[in-house]
Amino acid sequence: MLIETLASAGRSCFAAASLRRFSRSSAMAKSKFEYVRSFETDDTCLRNCYIVVRLDGRNFHKFAEQHQFAKPNDDRALGLMSRSARSVMEELEDITIAYGQSDEFSFVFKRTTTWFKRRASKLMTHVASQFSSSYVFYWKEFFGEQPLLYPPGFDGRVVLYPTNHNLRDYLSWRQADCHINNLYNTVFWTLIQKGGLTTTQAEDRLKGTLASDKNEILFSEFDTNYNNESAVHRKGTTLIWEKVRYSGVIKSAQFLQISVEDIPSMCPTSSV
Amino acid sequence: MLIETLASAGRSCFAAASLRRFSRSSAMAKSKFEYVRSFETDDTCLRNCYIVVRLDGRNFHKFAEQHQFAKPNDDRALGLMSRSARSVMEELEDITIAYGQSDEFSFVFKRTTTWFKRRASKLMTHVASQFSSSYVFYWKEFFGEQPLLYPPGFDGRVVLYPTNHNLRDYLSWRQADCHINNLYNTVFWTLIQKGGLTTTQAEDRLKGTLASDKNEILFSEFDTNYNNESAVHRKGTTLIWEKVRYSGVIKSAQFLQISVEDIPSMCPTSSV
Amino acid sequence: MLIETLASAGRSCFAAASLRRFSRSSAMAKSKFEYVRSFETDDTCLRNCYIVVRLDGRNFHKFAEQHQFAKPNDDRALGLMSRSARSVMEELEDITIAYGQSDEFSFVFKRTTTWFKRRASKLMTHVASQFSSSYVFYWKEFFGEQPLLYPPGFDGRVVLYPTNHNLRDYLSWRQADCHINNLYNTVFWTLIQKGGLTTTQAEDRLKGTLASDKNEILFSEFDTNYNNESAVHRKGTTLIWEKVRYSGVIKSAQFLQISVEDIPSMCPTSSV
Amino acid sequence: MLIETLASAGRSCFAAASLRRFSRSSAMAKSKFEYVRSFETDDTCLRNCYIVVRLDGRNFHKFAEQHQFAKPNDDRALGLMSRSARSVMEELEDITIAYGQSDEFSFVFKRTTTWFKRRASKLMTHVASQFSSSYVFYWKEFFGEQPLLYPPGFDGRVVLYPTNHNLRDYLSWRQADCHINNLYNTVFWTLIQKGGLTTTQAEDRLKGTLASDKNEILFSEFDTNYNNESAVHRKGTTLIWEKVRYSGVIKSAQFLQISVEDIPSMCPTSSV
Repeated sequence: MLIETLASAGRSCFAAASLRRFSRSSAMAKSKFEYVRSFETDDTCLRNCYIVVRLDGRNFHKFAEQHQFAKPNDDRALGLMSRSARSVMEELEDITIAYGQSDEFSFVFKRTTTWFKRRASKLMTHVASQFSSSYVFYWKEFFGEQPLLYPPGFDGRVVLYPTNHNLRDYLSWRQADCHINNLYNTVFWTLIQKGGLTTTQAEDRLKGTLASDKNEILFSEFDTNYNNESAVHRKGTTLIWEKVRYSGVIKSAQFLQISVEDIPSMCPTSSV
Repeated sequence: MLIETLASAGRSCFAAASLRRFSRSSAMAKSKFEYVRSFETDDTCLRNCYIVVRLDGRNFHKFAEQHQFAKPNDDRALGLMSRSARSVMEELEDITIAYGQSDEFSFVFKRTTTWFKRRASKLMTHVASQFSSSYVFYWKEFFGEQPLLYPPGFDGRVVLYPTNHNLRDYLSWRQADCHINNLYNTVFWTLIQKGGLTTTQAEDRLKGTLASDKNEILFSEFDTNYNNESAVHRKGTTLIWEKVRYSGVIKSAQFLQISVEDIPSMCPTSSV
Repeated sequence: MLIETLASAGRSCFAAASLRRFSRSSAMAKSKFEYVRSFETDDTCLRNCYIVVRLDGRNFHKFAEQHQFAKPNDDRALGLMSRSARSVMEELEDITIAYGQSDEFSFVFKRTTTWFKRRASKLMTHVASQFSSSYVFYWKEFFGEQPLLYPPGFDGRVVLYPTNHNLRDYLSWRQADCHINNLYNTVFWTLIQKGGLTTTQAEDRLKGTLASDKNEILFSEFDTNYNNESAVHRKGTTLIWEKVRYSGVIKSAQFLQISVEDIPSMCPTSSV
Repeated sequence: MLIETLASAGRSCFAAASLRRFSRSSAMAKSKFEYVRSFETDDTCLRNCYIVVRLDGRNFHKFAEQHQFAKPNDDRALGLMSRSARSVMEELEDITIAYGQSDEFSFVFKRTTTWFKRRASKLMTHVASQFSSSYVFYWKEFFGEQPLLYPPGFDGRVVLYPTNHNLRDYLSWRQADCHINNLYNTVFWTLIQKGGLTTTQAEDRLKGTLASDKNEILFSEFDTNYNNESAVHRKGTTLIWEKVRYSGVIKSAQFLQISVEDIPSMCPTSSV
């Protein structure tokens, strides 16, 4: 059992202390203890590198079950993830692109950002915090009267990428991961929901199959062309800043940071 | 304006792609991109040190105003901070003590913890995330029908302390900070609320005063003994784990990690 | 006074220990202590960045005086620096370019190197060690019978550069530093050696002068065109690997890593 | 083949440049490039921890063969290692204890040191450099006319230990390692040198033996009590600072930093 102790153990210590001495020594005490600040270490991100913060849901398998997420994809949950990511991009500075799928979201800071002096800890905790508070705040917009049972958690990490090429490959990696998982899940749940298999039977059926086999199952047995499935499910969600024109003038301080040439960079993955 | 692009730029890329080629190359593509994982760096915390994660509210001065927090202390807000901290201690592992004041909270992991392999990024983002989602989740418990206007943010950092002595001094430092700020704020708002001064007049009045002067103002002008003010306001909030006995058996997996001798360690600050 | 104690304090401890117990417990003891390895931290350099190790002579002002280095430049000392740098490039792997001036030398590892798993500590200590032992080893080749009075020291650091552009600017920075210092030193020592000024008078004379003023002093008072001074003195020394052909076949495992286009990159500095 | 290029590629670039422009732009160029300094990262060692720098010989197996080191221990080589370590302790600050065996040496900085602002890179490169230059410088003192064939290399690393207990265990770990290796080597070379076995036969003989078996071989077959072997070989070398009194006054700036209680700390290992 967790209890709140109001530092009461210390109360007796100063019972005899006069009011004057009590308060004067306080500032002195503070400066005496202040040396502990020097134990903080510098975790500045290397300059001229892209800073990527990726968040992952904590125990989201269980979270999804407890909140009856639809299988294989719950559009309410995906919408809430995107809404929370948008909140991060609006509140924090210098995030130029975000990519999300399932219970994860990656945020890319522009390589020249000096926000919070590029301190890794500040960047990743700000992202994790803003995303998490937004997830609860906007829950009702997507789940209506279905209650959120407990506050969810997300963990984060920072990864640096020195070149455009490396960054593209990072985003492609996450998008290929989305595709592989979604194809598997789509066939798996189709076999169960439409094919009447148990989860064990569906697992056995898919063991050792290639992606082409999975597509074939969908196509020949369930008359489903995987390519016609929702793009959000197959490829995930990408958030970028768009230039906004009011009366012909570009107004938004931030706009599309990745150049047009960069977008097709995700094409090899998308086309995969 | 932020827009969601469903990777649509890539759509045309695979228009001509056959279904088979499409899916086979996906797994290959993923493994081709997977090298980007090797850009992640190891941020393991030095063994046998206390790991402290401190959170700070982002722009909470403005947040407090917008939500009409009482001055100098809002017990609803302080209660919500403690409730969120309790949520962190209950959900995450190996936190043995937490200390909070104003819009900040520090969490101390036991020095032998191996949670998440002691990776700093995991520890601090988990704390920041769980705290933030809890803050929104439990808002209503403390603020009732007063609405939360937007999702708040907290940033975090990790600091290591090699010895008991250093850790004690860290906690004492935060507690001395609490005392100094609270004494100032108490006098400042008393001068305004009971003394009828403007904020500028109150600032001028307090310029250059020692703590003893501030106590004197409270005592002689407003008949207030600062020492009788609420301990939570003067000293902040400490959360620890308590041993719980059911039928004589200690049941809680986690219990009081800091020894009884450690508690008076915060006494020098408390008595200050 | 430094003494060698042969762990003799421990000797009495095992006087009573039997030979058998003594030796069996040794391996056990080792594994018991081996946990201390886990305190080592990972300092892997970010992938796909150039790794630069720069060495600087320790107290070389004093070292130069004690060994009567010629002013403003001692060609024996510069030759020994280059010879030691060559030893580093020959003994260690994946160094593609080295640049030196005065008592400093920078070594650039190729961005894809995996030597010692890119561990910063290994790279910089290897460079510092090989350079230092070589400096003593080759002393005689450059200073003949003049004795080396004591073993000199060099400190090192690692800096990462994500792009060709950044690396070029690093090398340009060191070369601009070389130029500025050498121009100052050339005029300073000319004023003393040919102009008969004291060091104080020479300092006063140069106070506040621009580079153009310094060139003018050399030209009009000492009939010296600074541009005709030795290029090694004005620009420092660059070491690179050259392709070697034996009977038309490229034999060297390592060859010129920087492209021809990169070399003029140092031109803006050189021309400065 | 390694060549020295005197930045000659750049020479043509400024052929047309006037003397004046040349020199004025130099300082400007330097400041333009100076931003590259901001790529240096802070590697300050956590405060209040012991800082250990351990050096290891590079390819010393081959080095020992090429220089005909005696087997299993060469007292000249061990003496030179200790002499070089002494040079490190005399030249650098705040090293309170050093421990060496075979081709490795560990240096312990006092936990409160602020030398070079506790920057890990500075500490380890200084140690590696001073040790290496000393090794060549003092070679003749130990090897006389036998020439040093090439400049040897040592690599280094930094490890932090938060407590006395951890540091003791580190030193015990290295000393247990010394004992295990030396016992093996002593029996191995006795079997060859006195027993007439080949190296392969000696290896086979020792395969799977416990330390007790090795002691027994020495005792029963070669009438050798391992415990009577040289302590330097069995336990390695420890260097500490001793208080020196001149006319009753402690003169040395540095003195024995480890307390008397600490020395027996290595006893558990020694007794092993």
